[in-house]
Amino acid sequence: MTPTDHQTSQTTDQTTLQTLLASIRPADAAAMTSARERQAQLTKPAGALGLLEDLSVRLAGVFGTDRPHPRGVAVIVAAGDHGVVAEGVSAYPPEVTAAMVAGFTASTPSGMGGAAVNVIARTVGAKVYVADVGVNAELPTHPALENLKVRMGTRNLRLERAMTADETLQAILAGSDLAGRAIAEGADLLVPGEMGIGNTTPASAVTARMLGASVASVTGRGTGVDDATLARKRQVISAALDRDASHAGDPLGVMADLGGLEIAFMLGVMLRAASERRAIVLDGFVEGSAALVGVALAPELRDYLFPAGQCAETGHAAQLAHLGLTPMFDLGLRLGEGTGGVLAAPMLLSAAATLREMQTFAEASVPDRE
Amino acid sequence: MTPTDHQTSQTTDQTTLQTLLASIRPADAAAMTSARERQAQLTKPAGALGLLEDLSVRLAGVFGTDRPHPRGVAVIVAAGDHGVVAEGVSAYPPEVTAAMVAGFTASTPSGMGGAAVNVIARTVGAKVYVADVGVNAELPTHPALENLKVRMGTRNLRLERAMTADETLQAILAGSDLAGRAIAEGADLLVPGEMGIGNTTPASAVTARMLGASVASVTGRGTGVDDATLARKRQVISAALDRDASHAGDPLGVMADLGGLEIAFMLGVMLRAASERRAIVLDGFVEGSAALVGVALAPELRDYLFPAGQCAETGHAAQLAHLGLTPMFDLGLRLGEGTGGVLAAPMLLSAAATLREMQTFAEASVPDRE
Repeated sequence: MTPTDHQTSQTTDQTTLQTLLASIRPADAAAMTSARERQAQLTKPAGALGLLEDLSVRLAGVFGTDRPHPRGVAVIVAAGDHGVVAEGVSAYPPEVTAAMVAGFTASTPSGMGGAAVNVIARTVGAKVYVADVGVNAELPTHPALENLKVRMGTRNLRLERAMTADETLQAILAGSDLAGRAIAEGADLLVPGEMGIGNTTPASAVTARMLGASVASVTGRGTGVDDATLARKRQVISAALDRDASHAGDPLGVMADLGGLEIAFMLGVMLRAASERRAIVLDGFVEGSAALVGVALAPELRDYLFPAGQCAETGHAAQLAHLGLTPMFDLGLRLGEGTGGVLAAPMLLSAAATLREMQTFAEASVPDRE
Repeated sequence: MTPTDHQTSQTTDQTTLQTLLASIRPADAAAMTSARERQAQLTKPAGALGLLEDLSVRLAGVFGTDRPHPRGVAVIVAAGDHGVVAEGVSAYPPEVTAAMVAGFTASTPSGMGGAAVNVIARTVGAKVYVADVGVNAELPTHPALENLKVRMGTRNLRLERAMTADETLQAILAGSDLAGRAIAEGADLLVPGEMGIGNTTPASAVTARMLGASVASVTGRGTGVDDATLARKRQVISAALDRDASHAGDPLGVMADLGGLEIAFMLGVMLRAASERRAIVLDGFVEGSAALVGVALAPELRDYLFPAGQCAETGHAAQLAHLGLTPMFDLGLRLGEGTGGVLAAPMLLSAAATLREMQTFAEASVPDRE
């Protein structure tokens, strides 16, 4: 491309993103009202299905009907590396990112993929998509691996912006495109997932900036770093936040400055899913950092987010409190990959099914309470 | 039957129960050790799957292998009525029990059954068995309804023993038999469920007696009674406990004195499942009361119990604390029917699958932490 072509492409990408953001509408309030009324008539004591009832009403809002019928579940696992690992912020060597991507597409006696997300997805009937958005290695081609690489990992966010605005935009739109394909292939529940050694560092940095929270309150042990590494990780994040505060009011600027390629990609997945009125199952802390940027760009995105579990990573509770959303379980998961989101899918499908398929007191001729 | 025949039959039933109890063995310790070692080698940070890892190890103990592969899920919904409803302890009229049983087997546009348990079971692929153990009505025959009626409801436990020893035994063995059939038909995870207007009253009475707990601490609002009814419910339970304390040290005596036909039936389901080394998914408070009697009769039963969710009913937490077991979620469910147990099944299947199918660091050539 010539510099002029590049500029044209950037402008087109900007327009695409603005169109995407503008297409996200609030949940359907009429469908939610109708769903609430229907819930009160189903053959059970009022409220006896607890959070499932609230979830069913929210799903009615997403799908625009008081008989929501989500079918396909897709988890889109995005992989990227992080320049900040040079600071020694992770318990694992960066080569693990590429090795885990190979694991996601490995042939095993049980089917494709030997990682937790593959195994859980097989169990609950979810389809797995794997995308290389920014792994710092040339990966062998594989029919199940989407090569959407924007860059060989981000820059070291302690020293400089992690990504340019253009790289950020490319990653977001790559996520939007793959989500669009997953939806076209039948996905009604989308689970953005991630793999990237070091990625709780950018996730904490983004969370601290977006929430105006202290670094310590939103920075945890990730894959399990020791006390010294945790202290260093917090210093690195503080240094990054101090390096340049000029983007604080600009969500895309925050993502570029402090985020990651797979995080920007997940943001794109979320925006596209919401724009096409599909439910997003929000897994853990890294996913949550993308969601914070997302709701800052398009507040209606919140209506499409369904947090799976309370993740064990420090800062996740603060993200959910900001989003005003209640998770479905607390299993102490801290793996990422979208594992918690896939585990939560049967609960969401069940919530929708109760609203859609249960008989009313009148239909079943069951006497209601006196 | 002549009185002598009846006595012979009672003796045979006693022998059958003793054989069943004696056949419950502890979980396989060697398989659990092997499972723990294997968990540490799977491609994820140690402990990153949280409670799923513990569950996978316990499932290894149940199925006697570090590659547990549970397949079929069955929920067995037992229905019974309660003489104590004459005391005005429930928000719903007793006719609801029979009407809900009809709902469990009703033809609907989506398949058999229009109750929550049917709908959730369809969503997660669980098979539903429905048993009339003690509904106070002659129910129309239906191919999917097991007529195992012991009696037209229990006696009023405020005034007299709810069941005779013989009735209790019959209900337990009916549960054992149906569980045996469900296992023969492919069930590896069994969910005992119940329907019985008024049945949180016997469940609270049994729980208070088995735990030596105060009535107030284990008696809640059931389907949602008001303050006056809750106070009356507590008085009724206190009166029942005061009526006859002679069975306090005899678990079967407690079940007969204070329990219910569907509760005794669920106890039978649990004992049979454990004796055949299948996992039991424990739904809510009424199920928990049966489990308390079960572990008093056969302490090894505990190894086979997997509590689904924290139920919203007062006293459930005390039951789980006594059993020393951690639930998988807290959705605020308080419906019964086995709904929470069915919802939890995909989590247990996923826990087993991660242990069975994930690659190790060595298999996947993933570098482990330094």
